[in-house]
Amino acid sequence: MAARPAQLAADATEVPEVVVSRLPQYVRALTRLTQQGITVVSSQQLGDLIQMTPAQIRKDLSYFGRFGKQGRGYSVKYLLGELRRILGLDQEWRVGLVGVGRLGRAILSYPGFAPEGFKVVAAFDADPRQVGQMVAGIMVQPMHRLGEVVHELGVRIAIVAVPASQAQEVVNRLVACDVRAIVNYAPVSPQAPAHVRVRNIDPVMALQSMTYYLTAPNSAAKQSASR
Amino acid sequence: MAARPAQLAADATEVPEVVVSRLPQYVRALTRLTQQGITVVSSQQLGDLIQMTPAQIRKDLSYFGRFGKQGRGYSVKYLLGELRRILGLDQEWRVGLVGVGRLGRAILSYPGFAPEGFKVVAAFDADPRQVGQMVAGIMVQPMHRLGEVVHELGVRIAIVAVPASQAQEVVNRLVACDVRAIVNYAPVSPQAPAHVRVRNIDPVMALQSMTYYLTAPNSAAKQSASR
Repeated sequence: MAARPAQLAADATEVPEVVVSRLPQYVRALTRLTQQGITVVSSQQLGDLIQMTPAQIRKDLSYFGRFGKQGRGYSVKYLLGELRRILGLDQEWRVGLVGVGRLGRAILSYPGFAPEGFKVVAAFDADPRQVGQMVAGIMVQPMHRLGEVVHELGVRIAIVAVPASQAQEVVNRLVACDVRAIVNYAPVSPQAPAHVRVRNIDPVMALQSMTYYLTAPNSAAKQSASR
Repeated sequence: MAARPAQLAADATEVPEVVVSRLPQYVRALTRLTQQGITVVSSQQLGDLIQMTPAQIRKDLSYFGRFGKQGRGYSVKYLLGELRRILGLDQEWRVGLVGVGRLGRAILSYPGFAPEGFKVVAAFDADPRQVGQMVAGIMVQPMHRLGEVVHELGVRIAIVAVPASQAQEVVNRLVACDVRAIVNYAPVSPQAPAHVRVRNIDPVMALQSMTYYLTAPNSAAKQSASR
């Protein structure tokens, strides 16, 4: 890996991760405003779109500089351009997929990645029956070629769609290949070194965070009935 | 809808949504500890497992009562049982899927829902060629039967796996059928009334929240090169 200026790396880590993880929502909202022909937006209006308070919006953006003029709102085009640049969305990212089962195949066929600058360029599977198959224009490679292909094709990001029991080992191998951004679909939370970002996509956790609201109004009745 | 005691509903809304959305992570960590035979856990240890500070853990749990004894940590079994009950995970939830394309089929075949108490009992599609097909043991129904089937089978939760252009209309129809918890896989953020919870599962946003970290260390070089 190339040496990095220590100061810039430190600056990057100063922004709370939760703030960074919200920026894509800003980008999506601003993109929609652009499509609607809206050129200026207040923090109140932006907040309404992404369900945050104007104060939170201003605080989030203050980490990255001054984008608005006092009392005049934000230029939609300028703010969108800056946020896209800050997030690195002004370039193409090459993505590798590990696991070409049902879910992996749905991911390879998903039309939403390419328009956003994420190009899936390689796919891998441990099952010899999958290797050599063409899926959505990509030939499935054996796992032992992972390091070689990741290096050759400049893959910086991986999507993991393997069974839970294999996820940690796959993440370890990706980390060893210097992949530093991983989207994990396996229903576990794999461990990775601090310099590697892992985002878990977990429909069960999404479901579990909603049943609270279906349950709470009746919790007294439930309690007295069950204990 | 049945009338609900106003006071209990108010209590439920007092817990910040971000706290509720973290509880499934607690449940997963505590389940793993149980499997490892660990019976008592400190907020420090629990925090290490889910990457939060002990103070955050104690604050989160304080919304729901007193679970730990001063200086003695939490009983893993008791805390897990209480959190599962609070989240409503001590019962089975019936789930309906809308959209039986590639992604919908992967969802229907996903083995992770049932063991967690989420039973997919119905599937719907607007395409007449899909209707009547059996997928993972479920017969695909036409959209016009949505309300009837949701009511008959007691579906409380829906998963939306339709194209972006159809997502809002599908969400509207689900809301009209009194479905109040929706997991949305379409790459848009559909609007819904405040009493309906929507969780967006969006791999593009997950990707976009990581490229920042791949970009930031080189941002000075990028800036001078591109402008």
